[in-house]
Amino acid sequence: MSTAGKVIRCRAAVSWAPNTPATIEEIEVAPPQAGEVRIKIVATSVCHSDLYHLLESMTEDGFPTVLGHEGAGIVESVGPGVTEFQPGDKAIPLFLCQCKECRFCKSPRTNQCERAWTRIRQEIMAGVESRFTCKGKRIHQFMGTSTFSEYTVINQIAVTKIDPAAPLDKVCLLGCGICTGYGAAVNTAKVEAGSSCAVFGLGAVGLAAVMGCKAAGASRIIAVDINPDKAEKAKELGATDFLNPKDHSQPVHEVISGMTGGGVDFSLECVGNVEVMRSALESSMEAWGVSVVVGWTDMFDIAIRPRHLICGRTWKGSMFGGFKAKDGVAGMVRAFLEKKVKLDEFISHNMALEQVNDAIELMRNSQCVRVVMKVSPE
Amino acid sequence: MSTAGKVIRCRAAVSWAPNTPATIEEIEVAPPQAGEVRIKIVATSVCHSDLYHLLESMTEDGFPTVLGHEGAGIVESVGPGVTEFQPGDKAIPLFLCQCKECRFCKSPRTNQCERAWTRIRQEIMAGVESRFTCKGKRIHQFMGTSTFSEYTVINQIAVTKIDPAAPLDKVCLLGCGICTGYGAAVNTAKVEAGSSCAVFGLGAVGLAAVMGCKAAGASRIIAVDINPDKAEKAKELGATDFLNPKDHSQPVHEVISGMTGGGVDFSLECVGNVEVMRSALESSMEAWGVSVVVGWTDMFDIAIRPRHLICGRTWKGSMFGGFKAKDGVAGMVRAFLEKKVKLDEFISHNMALEQVNDAIELMRNSQCVRVVMKVSPE
Repeated sequence: MSTAGKVIRCRAAVSWAPNTPATIEEIEVAPPQAGEVRIKIVATSVCHSDLYHLLESMTEDGFPTVLGHEGAGIVESVGPGVTEFQPGDKAIPLFLCQCKECRFCKSPRTNQCERAWTRIRQEIMAGVESRFTCKGKRIHQFMGTSTFSEYTVINQIAVTKIDPAAPLDKVCLLGCGICTGYGAAVNTAKVEAGSSCAVFGLGAVGLAAVMGCKAAGASRIIAVDINPDKAEKAKELGATDFLNPKDHSQPVHEVISGMTGGGVDFSLECVGNVEVMRSALESSMEAWGVSVVVGWTDMFDIAIRPRHLICGRTWKGSMFGGFKAKDGVAGMVRAFLEKKVKLDEFISHNMALEQVNDAIELMRNSQCVRVVMKVSPE
Repeated sequence: MSTAGKVIRCRAAVSWAPNTPATIEEIEVAPPQAGEVRIKIVATSVCHSDLYHLLESMTEDGFPTVLGHEGAGIVESVGPGVTEFQPGDKAIPLFLCQCKECRFCKSPRTNQCERAWTRIRQEIMAGVESRFTCKGKRIHQFMGTSTFSEYTVINQIAVTKIDPAAPLDKVCLLGCGICTGYGAAVNTAKVEAGSSCAVFGLGAVGLAAVMGCKAAGASRIIAVDINPDKAEKAKELGATDFLNPKDHSQPVHEVISGMTGGGVDFSLECVGNVEVMRSALESSMEAWGVSVVVGWTDMFDIAIRPRHLICGRTWKGSMFGGFKAKDGVAGMVRAFLEKKVKLDEFISHNMALEQVNDAIELMRNSQCVRVVMKVSPE
């Protein structure tokens, strides 16, 4: 019997307050309204932005919420006026919109959409209020997506239809981290063939940046992390060198300068730490280096001496790897199916939604690359 | 009787210590050594970098010195091995080298030369010691140029030959400020036709940036200065709007955002103030703005929130407007002769070398655009 038009009662991992464990609850997911799509989430992975919200943003405003923004699923029903999606379509929710109509979407210079990136972490779903309730309370939809739930409702401008052949428990990774790192190298830094690169931080985003540098033809890729266990995976994905800052008494930018005759052509910060952002900039060649801030943090300023720019460096930032959200994710799914992009290498653990707190704990301790949680059966 | 090969005794304005008036002295200028050129300086202008060294860098190390790095003159003699210049050539000394042989000079990505930008303000001439003495003491050559002297000696990689038709008392301005501002818009920001721009600070560099934005076809050029007297000149050079931050209670980036529907496409900081650098960045469109640091300061860090970059802005710096020094200055001289670039509009005062302290005082109080001092008769 079709569930279309009805409230769905389903399981979700609800986070009630900052820095507390989530609890598995039965929530009510309202039917999609005009322009909205209700999706059965089949698999989701855990990204550091989920942790950032839960552990560091330190505000009660965004709670209670259902976290999760790297998910993949199947369209269950669509609201009035939706023609792009049909029940049964495989789809990936997007924390960045692409309406294809605004001046941003029509410009090749940005991947923002004027109809709102769900700007702040605790923001409800793009442009509308949440469709979740639990025990009589409204539950926020984190980043407009909330993929730690068996069902979620999303505005059609924040969902992309993907190839029906795509394995959902793999391509869920393309909802954030992998696209972010890969695109930062390919789209934002525009890494050139034969160039030298340094990637700071070897979580999923950094490893994807390494993969992006490799895909762009970089001849030297220096992977930087304070955890030596990351070296092997980085080399598997294309790094030519591994550098552990703890192994050196000099600042890391001086080590890199020495390794490369003055600094790398391109550097990418994939940690979300303002000191590392400065190091990454300083590690790029003074005369022409391009450094890209990829990691997210919003609590402190980044600082540099003006001459670090005046002498010739360019400092950029990358959100979602510069990909236009719908087109980019659908394209990356195809690239995976065509074996041009790797995903399996990023999946370190498979769990069930019930293990969400274990997954968060693993991520928190940086002991893994990505945990994929099975949410619903296909 | 030729002076070639002999020590020349001539007048120069010697600055003996930070923040003290210069005195006109007779100095000895040694003959050019291998690869060097001795130039009779006909005219020089005063740039804020001279003042920065004199008034703000606050170190005794660079003194005594002869300031001045915006000059034009005539080659008096050349040292062994110099084939590019001959006595009688009109020439402009360069504080930035172009050897045309190093990996930097051969790269289109930078205008630095590996054979040394005279890196620090108090640096002696590029690659060699000073050729000046006075009262038995070695006198530093500021930025390798020292144009506040009737004669100076410069390495051939830091001089450019210019069109014999060029009026030296005008084209001396091309030694620094005008190229810096104009090139920052055209070469570094790469201002696009139909775009919106904001230029912060309307000294010679900022006004030249306005002229560059206009030449690049910008349709809106917002000139920003706390001195309303600058408005007229800015509009003469192409500004469409003048904005005095003191006229508004809101921060200037919010005013500009309101004027432009979210921020300008390109912003240029031409003051040398870290707070203004931040404002300029924030005044550029979040999704794709390009902001260029043009003004020089090296005492404080610039700071921004990571999201200011992550959301889509690019922060760059510009040294000497991105021009390869020899080629750029010679080209700008031709552009002036072809009336594609204005210079007369920048000259507010004509003085003699003896009035150097008056000229510095005028610049210090920002009461003028450029003072041109006559140094020697042609």
